[in-house]
Amino acid sequence: MTLKPLAPGARIGILGGGQLGRMMAQSAAELGFLVHIYCPEPDCPAAQVAPEFTCADYSDQKALKAFAESVDAITYEFENVPQDTAHFLNTFRPVAPAPKALGIAQDRWLEKTFIQDQGIDVAQFFDITSRDDLVKALDTLGGNGILKTRRFGYDGKGQWRLSPTSNIDEIYAELNAQPAILEGLVLFQSEISVIIARDYEGNIACYDPTENSHENHILRHSRVPGNMSVDLQQNAQQIAHKIATALDYIGVLAIELFIADQKLIVNEIAPRVHNSGHWTMDAAATSQFTQHIRAISAWPLGSAIRHSNVEMENLLGDEINNWLSLASEPNCHIHLYGKQEAKPGRKMGHVNRTSPFTQTR
Amino acid sequence: MTLKPLAPGARIGILGGGQLGRMMAQSAAELGFLVHIYCPEPDCPAAQVAPEFTCADYSDQKALKAFAESVDAITYEFENVPQDTAHFLNTFRPVAPAPKALGIAQDRWLEKTFIQDQGIDVAQFFDITSRDDLVKALDTLGGNGILKTRRFGYDGKGQWRLSPTSNIDEIYAELNAQPAILEGLVLFQSEISVIIARDYEGNIACYDPTENSHENHILRHSRVPGNMSVDLQQNAQQIAHKIATALDYIGVLAIELFIADQKLIVNEIAPRVHNSGHWTMDAAATSQFTQHIRAISAWPLGSAIRHSNVEMENLLGDEINNWLSLASEPNCHIHLYGKQEAKPGRKMGHVNRTSPFTQTR
Repeated sequence: MTLKPLAPGARIGILGGGQLGRMMAQSAAELGFLVHIYCPEPDCPAAQVAPEFTCADYSDQKALKAFAESVDAITYEFENVPQDTAHFLNTFRPVAPAPKALGIAQDRWLEKTFIQDQGIDVAQFFDITSRDDLVKALDTLGGNGILKTRRFGYDGKGQWRLSPTSNIDEIYAELNAQPAILEGLVLFQSEISVIIARDYEGNIACYDPTENSHENHILRHSRVPGNMSVDLQQNAQQIAHKIATALDYIGVLAIELFIADQKLIVNEIAPRVHNSGHWTMDAAATSQFTQHIRAISAWPLGSAIRHSNVEMENLLGDEINNWLSLASEPNCHIHLYGKQEAKPGRKMGHVNRTSPFTQTR
Repeated sequence: MTLKPLAPGARIGILGGGQLGRMMAQSAAELGFLVHIYCPEPDCPAAQVAPEFTCADYSDQKALKAFAESVDAITYEFENVPQDTAHFLNTFRPVAPAPKALGIAQDRWLEKTFIQDQGIDVAQFFDITSRDDLVKALDTLGGNGILKTRRFGYDGKGQWRLSPTSNIDEIYAELNAQPAILEGLVLFQSEISVIIARDYEGNIACYDPTENSHENHILRHSRVPGNMSVDLQQNAQQIAHKIATALDYIGVLAIELFIADQKLIVNEIAPRVHNSGHWTMDAAATSQFTQHIRAISAWPLGSAIRHSNVEMENLLGDEINNWLSLASEPNCHIHLYGKQEAKPGRKMGHVNRTSPFTQTR
């Protein structure tokens, strides 16, 4: 579906009520839109800041239809929206990013194949549908690799690090016949990401690449500029541009990459606003959330220019209890998600620490 | 009343549901607070972005009490909150800025006297309680001056420009026995304002002064930096500091001044976030709205450092219909208020146009 630019006062539907949906809803309100959140959880962060909320399952066609008919455009905050749901909604109202991007991003084999087809480097990978496939692929890789389910893995779930001493039978049993891929190890120096936006006209706005560090497979810090040359920054942005265009993408897209021997290898893509783009809220002309809402509303994109250096830190679990000391730090910008229970590892908020602009670090 | 820093998840009550309340509510949500809006108008902009809304009159003590008891701290978005209302609420929960500042800002005679008592220049002014007072004062000023009601004037309402040819009887009749002041004319070169914040500990955060231009008594543009020397910028900030401290002020305070012959003359103060501080949303480390919520929640203040140059423009009435062309301008940041009807002169939104930082213009 295509779309004419939505006038202020139009209604935007967002699937998912977590912090990403919340921050999108806040940006949508700034642009004069009315937001309708659709989420199966009753006390979700996004519902606190939106005038309309439907609490229903993603398979509830009656609720989905009523939701779709109440809005002018639909988007989502997470990539595991069932494709059937996205297709169904798309028969009523434009859904962006298009269900095609969801389909590719939800399946690691499709994703890696698609990226490789664009002439972009990815880690070696093998389709695993049997124990035999696994043994053969592992042999090709010299016994080392990472086994990943094709679908539904995130934050390190659905992944097994394999080495020559691993018990293949045990791990293959744990996989429980789920389709999977085996990936070669990448001895990377750093992990980076690029947040890019594309509008209905095909225009692109690309943010400066972010250097990320993870702990227990969860993003911990993002730094911009990262420790990388201007050349690498530009190459990473070109890769993001190529992928967004090949997907005929509308909205904000995140590309995660490795830097290994001064080369770039794409790890994965996320068809949505992304944790590693939270720095844009305090250090770029347009935040990723405003950018996404502009794109899916068929507005022109805003400037992605960065005006400050920045380090983003996630507040996980009871780290949110440090709010007073964080509030006392100069140039520490606090963003909290309104979640009541601070479970271990749960993303409760983030802070952006800004400092004067430099091109590289 | 004093206050311990409010933890995320606390509830903040805001009197008034216009665009200032809306932008405060959005900032409060970013800090993890839950907002309760109290406003007599049902379809108010702030209610769209807040989880709780009471629609009742400012004299409805039952509704006020229930509102106060549902929140942890209370603030307001406009200076015409009835003082009785503020005092009544303050018996239940801390109201900031304190009712004292309201009392002073609501009465032009008290305001000017208070400022003058701090050793700060204001225009010559005279208390007018009779036709005789007016004739005498006008004589002292050589026949020229501005007659203003002591209370409830804004955007040019309740004001009469007097000259030697004015019909005094007619104008005095229009005044209709309201207490008033007569002000001497100030032949100013420019109008500026300073947005300053003060916290419960007495700390101050002061933004760079703003140069303002008005049309039909309504703010049109604000520019930062304005066309003024660094010395004048610092003097204006010192004046703001003095006034905020003398008022024992908590929250964001706006001081409007004239520059006349390279001297500063205070025109008026507003005990609230202010239209001429909207530029802080896109060009300062902390927006005035976040700053205000931090202050009234007994948090430390954020940095008021400016990272960009900026020009704010109000979108009045049907100027909001230019949204698409505004959205197409690079570095034009759009903020719309969710108002349905674009009446002439109504503030429908504003834009901030940013450019790289310089200290002076």
